[in-house]
Amino acid sequence: MAKITKVSPLAPKGGFPQLPNIDGVRFSTVAAGVKYAGRTDVMLAHVDAGSTIAGAFTRSSTRSAPVLDCQAKLGRVEDDNKGFAFLVNSGNSNAFTGRVGVEAVEAITSATAKTLGLPVSHIYTSSTGVIGEPLPHAKITAALDDLAATLSADAIEDAARAIMTTDTFAKGATATCEIGGVEVTVAGIAKGSGMIAPDMATMLVYIFTDAKISQLGLQEMVSRLNEDTFNAITVDSDTSTSDSLLVAATGTSGAIADDNETFERTLGVVMKDLAHQVVRDGEGATKFVEIHVEGATDNVDARKVAMSIANSPLVKTAIAGEDPNWGRVVMAVGKSGAHADRDTLSIWFGDVLVAKDGWVSPDYVEADAAAHMKGEDLRIRVDLGLGAGHSTVWTCDLTHGYIEINADYRS
Amino acid sequence: MAKITKVSPLAPKGGFPQLPNIDGVRFSTVAAGVKYAGRTDVMLAHVDAGSTIAGAFTRSSTRSAPVLDCQAKLGRVEDDNKGFAFLVNSGNSNAFTGRVGVEAVEAITSATAKTLGLPVSHIYTSSTGVIGEPLPHAKITAALDDLAATLSADAIEDAARAIMTTDTFAKGATATCEIGGVEVTVAGIAKGSGMIAPDMATMLVYIFTDAKISQLGLQEMVSRLNEDTFNAITVDSDTSTSDSLLVAATGTSGAIADDNETFERTLGVVMKDLAHQVVRDGEGATKFVEIHVEGATDNVDARKVAMSIANSPLVKTAIAGEDPNWGRVVMAVGKSGAHADRDTLSIWFGDVLVAKDGWVSPDYVEADAAAHMKGEDLRIRVDLGLGAGHSTVWTCDLTHGYIEINADYRS
Repeated sequence: MAKITKVSPLAPKGGFPQLPNIDGVRFSTVAAGVKYAGRTDVMLAHVDAGSTIAGAFTRSSTRSAPVLDCQAKLGRVEDDNKGFAFLVNSGNSNAFTGRVGVEAVEAITSATAKTLGLPVSHIYTSSTGVIGEPLPHAKITAALDDLAATLSADAIEDAARAIMTTDTFAKGATATCEIGGVEVTVAGIAKGSGMIAPDMATMLVYIFTDAKISQLGLQEMVSRLNEDTFNAITVDSDTSTSDSLLVAATGTSGAIADDNETFERTLGVVMKDLAHQVVRDGEGATKFVEIHVEGATDNVDARKVAMSIANSPLVKTAIAGEDPNWGRVVMAVGKSGAHADRDTLSIWFGDVLVAKDGWVSPDYVEADAAAHMKGEDLRIRVDLGLGAGHSTVWTCDLTHGYIEINADYRS
Repeated sequence: MAKITKVSPLAPKGGFPQLPNIDGVRFSTVAAGVKYAGRTDVMLAHVDAGSTIAGAFTRSSTRSAPVLDCQAKLGRVEDDNKGFAFLVNSGNSNAFTGRVGVEAVEAITSATAKTLGLPVSHIYTSSTGVIGEPLPHAKITAALDDLAATLSADAIEDAARAIMTTDTFAKGATATCEIGGVEVTVAGIAKGSGMIAPDMATMLVYIFTDAKISQLGLQEMVSRLNEDTFNAITVDSDTSTSDSLLVAATGTSGAIADDNETFERTLGVVMKDLAHQVVRDGEGATKFVEIHVEGATDNVDARKVAMSIANSPLVKTAIAGEDPNWGRVVMAVGKSGAHADRDTLSIWFGDVLVAKDGWVSPDYVEADAAAHMKGEDLRIRVDLGLGAGHSTVWTCDLTHGYIEINADYRS
């Protein structure tokens, strides 16, 4: 692993947020020695009887054994719902490990089920770290008694730290709302900083709420929100084999959240916050960039153009160099495969109209755009001038830091 | 423009090749001051009466005015075929320049036609360099008399140098064959080193032959060969707005090349050689990488997987770090969108079988793969184990050099 000594300059100021406890959710962590001795590398999250679980996973065709196991279990709720658990390790992704990878998942989930007195179908596991090496699952199962004995309602920050790999800061977010006069809380954690791309960034994300919501209702909400949060970020266009998002609703607040728009917005706030934090920890990132495309033939085309800009190495290096190089944005629009007409294209850097109707704007003063580029949070806006399709995605710049981290780190 | 002081370490040893004269083809160059004073930046290629022209161009939806003009002219041969000319400038791409860009093309092509006594439909022009700035076409047309007066059969190397931008070496290639006892010669030049991606790399390529071949026969051959040469290379996944390939056949050898497989192979040798040279001059490149995918459901899927690997920043940085990181290759296969089954996947680095049937090969010794990665010319081979589809593409690594060049250079 490359030595990451500095916290990303884009990390939220003020450090890890104060996250509220969610009634019915407990966490514990342990240093199991999965890859390195003495590093906290396993976390257990336990949610109480009656909870519901939703999720979203990488669409990679080479996804890992834990992901396949989670996908097979999602939506299954045993009649006697005694609760669920998430068991997550860093240091080894258990990806591309063939038959022994499947066996490791079976060993971990059945031992966790036994320790916690839950059905194995209620145990979800995730792994992140090196690909292709057998997961030393016995080290993890040996720590289960310890993990079960130390479960605590206020250990979510420790859990966030236990799942970090190349992350330079732990990621947490929270939001609350009221449903029928009852306060509902959402709190979540995430890890991820490279191999971040559409179809789920390379991330593990765990979100908890005390809202009361059906499995199907929660799943529909999560799938919908995922499109404009975790599926709308990219660091390097590379898609992990392990990306997993799990959302648990304990129902302990008593507030019923099915089809509740306020709750969906609140959950969306936490998902977007965590997604942005992943980009802000993008490997080598020095700029956080929002790319908004409008005027596309439809939303699919708008997303294509936005991702083409966000993933263009030439755009990303120009941003790193604080160069308002709109020619490269034009190039990225052109290669996207979406409907685009050079002569109806407008481009803004921040609030500065740079290009209009297929050429540089007559009022454009480069110094204005250059001033925007010197900031830490940048906005690129493109109007294709064709229709009503729109999309917003988030990315970071491409710097020497990315090369340093990835020419050495063995993922 | 970033100062490029060093020639790419991957440049062909021995410098620019000795290119034979092609009967019926003459070149001239001039320093017109398009962007910098005193730099040779315009080249004229003139091909004699009776020649035929074929070509291929960027598929970008924001392609430049010169490209649109070339595309409109391609296939048109006036009844009184007095020959053709290619007029090419570096320093300014005349891309995204709106109405004045179209006017610049009209000014250049009509002045060139007049100077050379050719119809304007027989004048092709290309521009490469900065996007979005008006092309100072008067500087170019002012040089036309000089260019016409100095046309010479043996100035092809000067022509290759005149069209360079961030290129660190001039690119030329040649091959010969016999058709019916008559020797036929092909010789070509190219420029390009960044913004190189499928659907034509960011390149200008001009190839000349003394074969006698119909316009349609030549076009079909060029389109076919283009798929496995210039469309099979990528430096950074970014597609230029200006890519142009033009092939001129003078017929002066008298050898008829329509549907001639030997000639097609010979033309293919020159096209592949130039395509490889563009990758070898990839911005910041230190490794030339051939990626071969086989066992895919079909050739389209094979190309998808090959390009996904070739464009993955994580694969490219691993190559820069000489790390045989096959986990990242698995990741790139998974995200490609092609049919793939983790458990039938095999991967070789050079001749070293790294992964087989969904897991690391039992015979794999990392030192063997690591030794291959230390070389300059690398091969990654992937067998998807599903069908007969196959594809080969070429790329380079992603290094600090790429960041240096592109965080400063205003393209």
